[in-house]
Amino acid sequence: MDDLLLKALRCEKTHRPPVWLMRQAGRYMKEYRDLKEKYSFLELCRNSELATEITLMPVRRFGPDAAIMFADILLILETFGFSLRFGQDQGPLIDTRNLLADPLSIKPSPVEDSLSYVAQTIKNLKKELKVPLLGFCGAPFTLATYVLEGRSSKDFKLTKQWLYQKPDLFHHLLDLLTEQTILYLKMQIKAGIDAIQIFDSWAGFFPYSEVQQFSLPYLKRIIQALKPSGVPIILFAKGSCAFVEDLAHLNPSAISLDSSGDLLKAIHRISSKISLQGNLDPDLLQAPLPTIRKEVMRLCMGMKDRPGYVFNLGHGIKPHTPLEAVECLIDTVKEVSYL
Amino acid sequence: MDDLLLKALRCEKTHRPPVWLMRQAGRYMKEYRDLKEKYSFLELCRNSELATEITLMPVRRFGPDAAIMFADILLILETFGFSLRFGQDQGPLIDTRNLLADPLSIKPSPVEDSLSYVAQTIKNLKKELKVPLLGFCGAPFTLATYVLEGRSSKDFKLTKQWLYQKPDLFHHLLDLLTEQTILYLKMQIKAGIDAIQIFDSWAGFFPYSEVQQFSLPYLKRIIQALKPSGVPIILFAKGSCAFVEDLAHLNPSAISLDSSGDLLKAIHRISSKISLQGNLDPDLLQAPLPTIRKEVMRLCMGMKDRPGYVFNLGHGIKPHTPLEAVECLIDTVKEVSYL
Repeated sequence: MDDLLLKALRCEKTHRPPVWLMRQAGRYMKEYRDLKEKYSFLELCRNSELATEITLMPVRRFGPDAAIMFADILLILETFGFSLRFGQDQGPLIDTRNLLADPLSIKPSPVEDSLSYVAQTIKNLKKELKVPLLGFCGAPFTLATYVLEGRSSKDFKLTKQWLYQKPDLFHHLLDLLTEQTILYLKMQIKAGIDAIQIFDSWAGFFPYSEVQQFSLPYLKRIIQALKPSGVPIILFAKGSCAFVEDLAHLNPSAISLDSSGDLLKAIHRISSKISLQGNLDPDLLQAPLPTIRKEVMRLCMGMKDRPGYVFNLGHGIKPHTPLEAVECLIDTVKEVSYL
Repeated sequence: MDDLLLKALRCEKTHRPPVWLMRQAGRYMKEYRDLKEKYSFLELCRNSELATEITLMPVRRFGPDAAIMFADILLILETFGFSLRFGQDQGPLIDTRNLLADPLSIKPSPVEDSLSYVAQTIKNLKKELKVPLLGFCGAPFTLATYVLEGRSSKDFKLTKQWLYQKPDLFHHLLDLLTEQTILYLKMQIKAGIDAIQIFDSWAGFFPYSEVQQFSLPYLKRIIQALKPSGVPIILFAKGSCAFVEDLAHLNPSAISLDSSGDLLKAIHRISSKISLQGNLDPDLLQAPLPTIRKEVMRLCMGMKDRPGYVFNLGHGIKPHTPLEAVECLIDTVKEVSYL
């Protein structure tokens, strides 16, 4: 296996940065949209053969240095008995009536029962792939906001209410989500994944004092629980540039920076033993190809003397991204030489 | 005049932090809503007597350590011939057809003509106030996004198009806005303001590389142009925690941090000669009073040994904020002792 990614995640010198892209399997690819005509998003996730096929689409087409299993951070909520569906264009809808009725009575079912299809997808992929396979999960705080809001939110009004009015119950929910996430990631590791990315998609929309109380301690617990496995953990948080020091203190293998700050300055804010991933603006993939090439090269060359760099976007690829932009990005990273 | 604010902006020791709040005159106050029943937002801005009255409302009621003139960052756009209106609940609408037809032909009219009412408001206020008066302006980048989008935007699609496709014209627009802003601020200074806050409300919604190219150089030019006046300049940028080092390099008197990062860690990222302002989460004013009091005290005491701290929110007060929460905040800061 080409272990460029794993080397970079161990902060070892590499001849160029490895590259993969968040949401590299997704709506910007026609092959994916064609499948989406026939199946719902959840059907695609739950069908291991299709999820395998979707994971491989960008790998075959663009040759990134890693694959990331096709799944969704919210699937784990089904193990708590929350029913999940994805409406057209309105994102996820989670039925949380059970929770609101009696939060203390929630008991999750074993991940091996409800999420066995994820393990199967991983096993299928490991037979096909020549590059490392990333598993992933949502951060407990991000999952909790979905549970409380029942959907994606703009103002997180219900979450804020819980935070201020029922902090103990909120911590209880975070505790449940954390323990189940650890079991879920252990299942992914057992099935064969090579590295993990944790997505804290919403923490950055909250003020620092709340991130500090309600997100960081649970991320820390997950990272510590998985350390003995030796599987590298990449921590992605939207807004990470604002509190990268705090993420570094959790001691992940890597921090995935969003596009809001300077990747090159982040070097000086964290330990040299932690890798950095990121942080090209996803919107830049709408720019002319020479602009893309120039900015990709600028980021890569800026990181030349800092072992432990993985090229990625600051956030997921957007649905209307041109294929040639993605191709240009990946080809440009592959032209980089750190020798 | 009680110069607690001005001392803090010079990084001198104070017996407690000064406190004022962004949007301290606004919709959360019944006196303001009553006026808003009778007049449009623009009428309130343009009528110096009413704008004076509105500025004084929170000063009389809560006793903050500074007043900020009632006005809007977009008023300056009228000097470019862009017509401006504020619809009900949809925010500002700017007619930009002239610009889009021929950007190079835009010529602004003198600020003394179109914005004389702002100077009059300042003169009125200086007769009434016992605390310093803040003037303000929008950052050229933020103003440019309004010009290009014609309104508040979520995705800044038109701005991105200009950025990528017509960077030279975009720089031309920023240049015009910068020069006019300098003249506008000089007018405010001449009328009597004691300090200035520059609001870069949208820069943080753009990736770092674009902030670096299209926002920071113009902020720098404004700050340098006003340095000889000796009037302190506070720089507010949404997302500032992600790039506080870069804002510090522009050498303002103070940086106003949003709530996304740790105020206490920002100390170590900037020169000790630059003051810090912020950064309580505006949503926290929905929390129970003891929670507000605790968090206000925590921030203030964390900054005890760092001369140059101004208490404020991380963003403007929200319309549904309870009056007793604002009162609790200001009273708590006034109880702080740095002696």
